[in-house]
Amino acid sequence: MGALTAVEYLSNYMDKKLINEFEMLLGKDRVLSETEELLCYSYDATSKDFMPDAVVFPLNAEEISKIVKLCLKYNTPVVGRGSGSGFSGGSLPLKGGVVVSFTKMNRILELDEENMFVTVEPGIINGDLKYYLSEKGYFYPPDPASYEFSTIGGNVAECSGGPAAVKYGVTKDYIAALEVITGEGEIIDTGSKTVKNVSGYNLTQLFTGSEGTLGLFSKITLKILSKPEANSLILVSFDDINNGFNAAISLLKLRNRPSMLEFMDKSSIESVKGYFKSDIIKIDGNFLFIVESDGSREEVDKSIGEYEKILKEFSPIFLFVSGKDEDKKVIMDARKAISPSLRKYGDLKINNDIAVPINKIPGMLSFLEETSRKYDIPIINFGHFGDGNIHVNIMLDKNNAEMVRKGETAKYDILKKTVELGGSLSGEHGIGLEKKEFMKLKYGDYYMNVLKNIKKAFDPQNIINPGKIF
Amino acid sequence: MGALTAVEYLSNYMDKKLINEFEMLLGKDRVLSETEELLCYSYDATSKDFMPDAVVFPLNAEEISKIVKLCLKYNTPVVGRGSGSGFSGGSLPLKGGVVVSFTKMNRILELDEENMFVTVEPGIINGDLKYYLSEKGYFYPPDPASYEFSTIGGNVAECSGGPAAVKYGVTKDYIAALEVITGEGEIIDTGSKTVKNVSGYNLTQLFTGSEGTLGLFSKITLKILSKPEANSLILVSFDDINNGFNAAISLLKLRNRPSMLEFMDKSSIESVKGYFKSDIIKIDGNFLFIVESDGSREEVDKSIGEYEKILKEFSPIFLFVSGKDEDKKVIMDARKAISPSLRKYGDLKINNDIAVPINKIPGMLSFLEETSRKYDIPIINFGHFGDGNIHVNIMLDKNNAEMVRKGETAKYDILKKTVELGGSLSGEHGIGLEKKEFMKLKYGDYYMNVLKNIKKAFDPQNIINPGKIF
Repeated sequence: MGALTAVEYLSNYMDKKLINEFEMLLGKDRVLSETEELLCYSYDATSKDFMPDAVVFPLNAEEISKIVKLCLKYNTPVVGRGSGSGFSGGSLPLKGGVVVSFTKMNRILELDEENMFVTVEPGIINGDLKYYLSEKGYFYPPDPASYEFSTIGGNVAECSGGPAAVKYGVTKDYIAALEVITGEGEIIDTGSKTVKNVSGYNLTQLFTGSEGTLGLFSKITLKILSKPEANSLILVSFDDINNGFNAAISLLKLRNRPSMLEFMDKSSIESVKGYFKSDIIKIDGNFLFIVESDGSREEVDKSIGEYEKILKEFSPIFLFVSGKDEDKKVIMDARKAISPSLRKYGDLKINNDIAVPINKIPGMLSFLEETSRKYDIPIINFGHFGDGNIHVNIMLDKNNAEMVRKGETAKYDILKKTVELGGSLSGEHGIGLEKKEFMKLKYGDYYMNVLKNIKKAFDPQNIINPGKIF
Repeated sequence: MGALTAVEYLSNYMDKKLINEFEMLLGKDRVLSETEELLCYSYDATSKDFMPDAVVFPLNAEEISKIVKLCLKYNTPVVGRGSGSGFSGGSLPLKGGVVVSFTKMNRILELDEENMFVTVEPGIINGDLKYYLSEKGYFYPPDPASYEFSTIGGNVAECSGGPAAVKYGVTKDYIAALEVITGEGEIIDTGSKTVKNVSGYNLTQLFTGSEGTLGLFSKITLKILSKPEANSLILVSFDDINNGFNAAISLLKLRNRPSMLEFMDKSSIESVKGYFKSDIIKIDGNFLFIVESDGSREEVDKSIGEYEKILKEFSPIFLFVSGKDEDKKVIMDARKAISPSLRKYGDLKINNDIAVPINKIPGMLSFLEETSRKYDIPIINFGHFGDGNIHVNIMLDKNNAEMVRKGETAKYDILKKTVELGGSLSGEHGIGLEKKEFMKLKYGDYYMNVLKNIKKAFDPQNIINPGKIF
């Protein structure tokens, strides 16, 4: 097992001639190669870092194509990077080489209101796009927790989800077309501005969630919706876990599904309880939900009434409803309080975004409780109930080697259990470096070989983000 | 250009030993090899036919795996077949070999009500599944015109759409996991019963719409919804095409999108006009829509009221609304009358299911009118407005060689224009044999080579449905 360390950093100490060629292509101001500059591009939201040999800032597909062709010539790895906010190491230059930063490719290229599509460059921040669309009356649903700083390019690479997925699906459900530069430096267009498209294999979907290993995106066309006019929230908690679970299942069967169904298990309720004080809501019990409905004011009021009626049938210990912005802020703050409240448990967090079939959530939560007891380490769980996506936080003291070792073993046990329950190793963060050693829990050699051969179809020289997934 | 003909039938006159091995594996009653038996498996909804050398009827994944391994040993093509109702030749044994019929693998394996998934064998008829689910209060939206006889396996292979796509999306939006036998006879499982899943490339989506060229499905897990309680329909027609077009665009911007938005252009209105008589509806004008809303009775009434108000702003010449089953039947009969009404124009139909960005529909319809005039052949158009999917029917007299030649040229012009308008060669029927020679209109050699290499990853010996797509 054992995570990859900086010792495994395999940089080939990039040929100075390649740096010169980059400078000739892009100008000196769009090429970084000094150690202190490179440092900023060596890490992400994992606790790992790998130094690149150069960072380049292209402005368009043609430049990216030329960059890749130079990398082919010098046999140098090339890794795309948005904001570097990923949790699986997707943007880390594991084997050194060139990091392609998309910070200068962050434009909205076209808002096509008649067809309801928006075309953007990959470097645009998800939140900036959301805000722009919202001002025009439109809505792009995928909302990873990082939406205020993660890029759409990164979101596509990792097929990001978020709370809205329960009603609106994940990133893949919004990608209509991609312009991609493959590992041979070729520029290809996948898809079209049509919902229906069956002409050759669905490369658009193949690239989505491919964790930056098949090519670099230069243009992304997203499907958009009209903006919902209103929303309301419910915070509800239960002492009896099964009651909470059955209540949530009942909400998911409704035609007017919640637009958010976030849960906190006993461990995260306990974590937040002392940390977060509020006059209007109570953080208590063994299972807590935040439920949202969106739509027209009338629809929302009707749905919320229906949700409330259902929830009350399951004997909640606390239930609070509001459509007022100030109350909604308090409710969401309770959810946001989880992350900072974890600090008291340790300074090293092993974060796993497993997904299990919804009816396996109670079983998985029991297993997590047992695992926490077994290894005597805090494991705090919350997540997106509606898609079985549990954020499992194993909290460790990074200076306690024994504890860190136990944490790694717990991670293995948890991923093994996830697979046994028919779940997925990652719901929305990806495999990257963090879980590649666990792929064999789910997939045999033959399957992994098929994946490798697919990569070869796009990247025969294996220069695009090498060392990830497999 | 010229379509492929039976002359190109490349059967390798199957080794009798292979037939014997099939019989030993499956028993004589599940192997066909007599010409009169094979004939029934030689054609589909295209006007082409290719004779297989044998037809086999497996019962499970293990048998399919053994069949594929025998085909590898004898280097014999193997082609999956559901109901043979495809419009692109996907189930035709172009190069002879073995047809794997899924008629004996048509069971519902599991209805998972808590997680809202259903797992089926590929041979189940879409309509049978719909009916089964409906009885239990569930809903599987994809509704190709062939739903009463096409199989779910075929629907997945071609990523079938249908009228419901405007609100509910197409087949790919409902596939959670597939069990597949690859071209090496290996059984793999893709996906899981979770909405979120980022662990390795998305093979589930890669197989969906791959036209039976990457493997044979043995198990399909589909996401299901709760059944809408009610629906109502509007039939509305316009003299001014732009008014009709703008009215439809306005409906698509609503949050409560229509659950169906079918259109008939002038050519199909003219075709149906004399053919279809009704006391309650009028088939007239230059642009006609059938609009549906589904949901709770209350939601439907509200939406229909809103649609009606919007439509009336665009000066329709006829508008009829009803929630009554008997009226809805009359309205849908008008739509269904198109196909039989076409017979008067010719006995050979070249059917194209192009998809263009919605705002290009008026331009495409003008072009189709010009093309019809230019070649002096009837071209009748209708389709699914909400996803730009136009069913273009070039009507020919099959004994008039000159006319057939002009029809083929018209098809080329139309597909070329589709690509120019940023559209897709096929919205829901696939490329198969019918359009493979047109792929170059949209894709370069490099792109096509990538597709071929992806196929190689699953089927290195090229025995799975060879000769399709490329």
